[in-house]
Amino acid sequence: MTLAPLHVGIAGLGTVGQATAQILISQAELLSMRAARRIILHSVSARDKHKKRDVDVSGLCWHDDPLKLANDPQIHVVIELIGGDEGVAKQLVETALKNGKHVVTANKALIAKHGVALAQLAEKNNVTLAFEAAVAGGIPVLKLLRQGLSANNTQRVAGILNGTCNYILTHMRDDKRELADVLAEAQQLGYAEAEPSFDIDGIDTAHKLAILTSLAYGVAPDLQAIHIEGIRAITLADLHHADELGYTIKLLGITARNDHGISQRVHPCLVEKGAALASVQGVFNAITIHTDSAGPIFIQGRGAGGGPTASAVIADIMDVARSTAGEPFGVVTQAISNAKTVAIDHVETSYYVRLSVLDKPGVLAEITSVFRDSNISLKSFLQHGHAPGEAVSLIIATHAAKESAMKQTLATIAKLASVVAPPFSIRIENL
Amino acid sequence: MTLAPLHVGIAGLGTVGQATAQILISQAELLSMRAARRIILHSVSARDKHKKRDVDVSGLCWHDDPLKLANDPQIHVVIELIGGDEGVAKQLVETALKNGKHVVTANKALIAKHGVALAQLAEKNNVTLAFEAAVAGGIPVLKLLRQGLSANNTQRVAGILNGTCNYILTHMRDDKRELADVLAEAQQLGYAEAEPSFDIDGIDTAHKLAILTSLAYGVAPDLQAIHIEGIRAITLADLHHADELGYTIKLLGITARNDHGISQRVHPCLVEKGAALASVQGVFNAITIHTDSAGPIFIQGRGAGGGPTASAVIADIMDVARSTAGEPFGVVTQAISNAKTVAIDHVETSYYVRLSVLDKPGVLAEITSVFRDSNISLKSFLQHGHAPGEAVSLIIATHAAKESAMKQTLATIAKLASVVAPPFSIRIENL
Repeated sequence: MTLAPLHVGIAGLGTVGQATAQILISQAELLSMRAARRIILHSVSARDKHKKRDVDVSGLCWHDDPLKLANDPQIHVVIELIGGDEGVAKQLVETALKNGKHVVTANKALIAKHGVALAQLAEKNNVTLAFEAAVAGGIPVLKLLRQGLSANNTQRVAGILNGTCNYILTHMRDDKRELADVLAEAQQLGYAEAEPSFDIDGIDTAHKLAILTSLAYGVAPDLQAIHIEGIRAITLADLHHADELGYTIKLLGITARNDHGISQRVHPCLVEKGAALASVQGVFNAITIHTDSAGPIFIQGRGAGGGPTASAVIADIMDVARSTAGEPFGVVTQAISNAKTVAIDHVETSYYVRLSVLDKPGVLAEITSVFRDSNISLKSFLQHGHAPGEAVSLIIATHAAKESAMKQTLATIAKLASVVAPPFSIRIENL
Repeated sequence: MTLAPLHVGIAGLGTVGQATAQILISQAELLSMRAARRIILHSVSARDKHKKRDVDVSGLCWHDDPLKLANDPQIHVVIELIGGDEGVAKQLVETALKNGKHVVTANKALIAKHGVALAQLAEKNNVTLAFEAAVAGGIPVLKLLRQGLSANNTQRVAGILNGTCNYILTHMRDDKRELADVLAEAQQLGYAEAEPSFDIDGIDTAHKLAILTSLAYGVAPDLQAIHIEGIRAITLADLHHADELGYTIKLLGITARNDHGISQRVHPCLVEKGAALASVQGVFNAITIHTDSAGPIFIQGRGAGGGPTASAVIADIMDVARSTAGEPFGVVTQAISNAKTVAIDHVETSYYVRLSVLDKPGVLAEITSVFRDSNISLKSFLQHGHAPGEAVSLIIATHAAKESAMKQTLATIAKLASVVAPPFSIRIENL
């Protein structure tokens, strides 16, 4: 071992920080052998030194102020596990990079918003910025895109990137319960936050998708370019109807490129039961990547939690130790381009449409003629219940149509006298 | 771009060589942007310069003798795509490394047999040896083990590593045809070789498993340590019985470590239908990796063919261009240890047993008492057909038992008067 030991400082000792510290300490010998140099957890910083934790940090240098890590000449790598896209996390990362320290972070919001500026700062100071843990926890998908698939033009990346949503949708379907009910349980079990909006409204998935898009296409992350819908409107009935039609419902983040640019969207999708993503259960994450040379790649693993996220954090530390990290966004920052965005209105998918209609003769003919007039072909329909004169559910699956055409069509259908509630639609994704 | 251009020479212009050349030429701009330096296909070598090929190499430097590539001072990276574990391929790789050239190869036999010696030679000459393409084509599983999962202790790696076998088993099941019939078709379609032994007897899977074991555990590849069985004995009836019991049959390569050492085995397995590996169809490859921190990871993709294999070859070239390759076996060669082998007799799995027995009262009692005397618990049994006094199939699924105990038990059963053919068993793997 000819290289000097690598000194690591961790800022933030929540679940991930503790797991990271624990692995760095307990697996020190293994990691040092693999890196051919010692990797030493030198310092930690958190709010309360005396809080009871799963890992014993009493032998380490302690800082109440995380910025001390960025200013300590003994430290080579700062691990930012504080979170938040502004404030102390950002200040810590910026200061560390300016001071010539490598930075490893799990902070998706920070990277989605300030990733390129931070990568420029890293480049200028000749240090590494790495954020594998920001996307899909234990699945090293950023390294996969950056290195494993570096020979390929990526055509599409589609992923289940939020374990909370996948847990909720899986349990709604399997336990036949409505969303509110499963969400309450997930909150009790610690799989969902007390304020669940970040997860179930798709924001968390969007942050991760913005980063995946960057690595896939060498473009700057752009949250504004992402069309975002969450899962709040999904009902148990939708899951049943989807099942009857041969699909399951998943919240996906999808980024795709065609000749016109890149489309990025987060929304619930009907996914064919035979597709790999359809079989991803509970809190697992998974990603399919379509490429020109390697073909389709599918990867599944744990998307969150202490161990999996720490695994990603430490893989980045190992890359620093071995000098194998590569460019944060896969290309030098000068080569990062701004994506040309394909707006959601121009995206073409098939659709599942749920209508509440009066059960009387002629209604189906009336509705199908609206689709015909819009040139949207129908693939199948289901009507459940038969209650003359009363409201029943009518489920329609279409062939591919442009989003704008579908919006227009549903607006027309909404005005029909026999349609008694606003139409609800979910996109059907061919994966 | 401050780095000098990287000059590549390809030896061997078969399917993979042509695809590699084609991507290096057509994607030169993309690759150069990603590597922040030009990557130039400089020379090629193959037997027949005038053979019609999918790629135009007329503008490149041509050598009839591949060793010329290893001696050309203009070339920085030699791509060995000749194949074979001795002879010219080995000589080319050795000469190139000795001459200070990086080597990228898809040659699994060469790496499985001589990988450590070659890695030592690379280390001594301060160059890279990379062989991502040797295992599972388009799936960058070696990079995944080396970098993405570098924080983890791997507990087990199990994979479908041979597309030919998976194609045959998939079509036997789906088309209800016997092995010989599907094999003949696969040979016609080019999915199987005229001499299929290398694939269907498990040798190809064993080569790949030896390399996976190395990367997973930092040990030297050791083909001798692998217990190898192919798929020739699998019948359509076995696939049907497995299906009834809730399983599908796959040829797996499995490497696992416990306190006693590492067990490596290649054999057909009954895999529960719900397991990710059970749903891998046709010529696809897939691998599950069980780790201590990240949890289970599953990755699926194309295991062979020009594009996927070239994708892996070029990813390695990109690693050379960016200096991000890391150590061939994940650790410096001095740290590579010799694995302590757990022999197959000490491996514990459940079993599927197919017996041909005379259909008469008392036979089942006789057989189950042999299992009882061996302390092997039974999970389920199936008897198909009822033909008093004639031979019928009796299918038994056991709970976990040691291989040695099962061998002994089946030997005892084979001697029973009512058992009219040698017992046949397939291991049941919990993945």
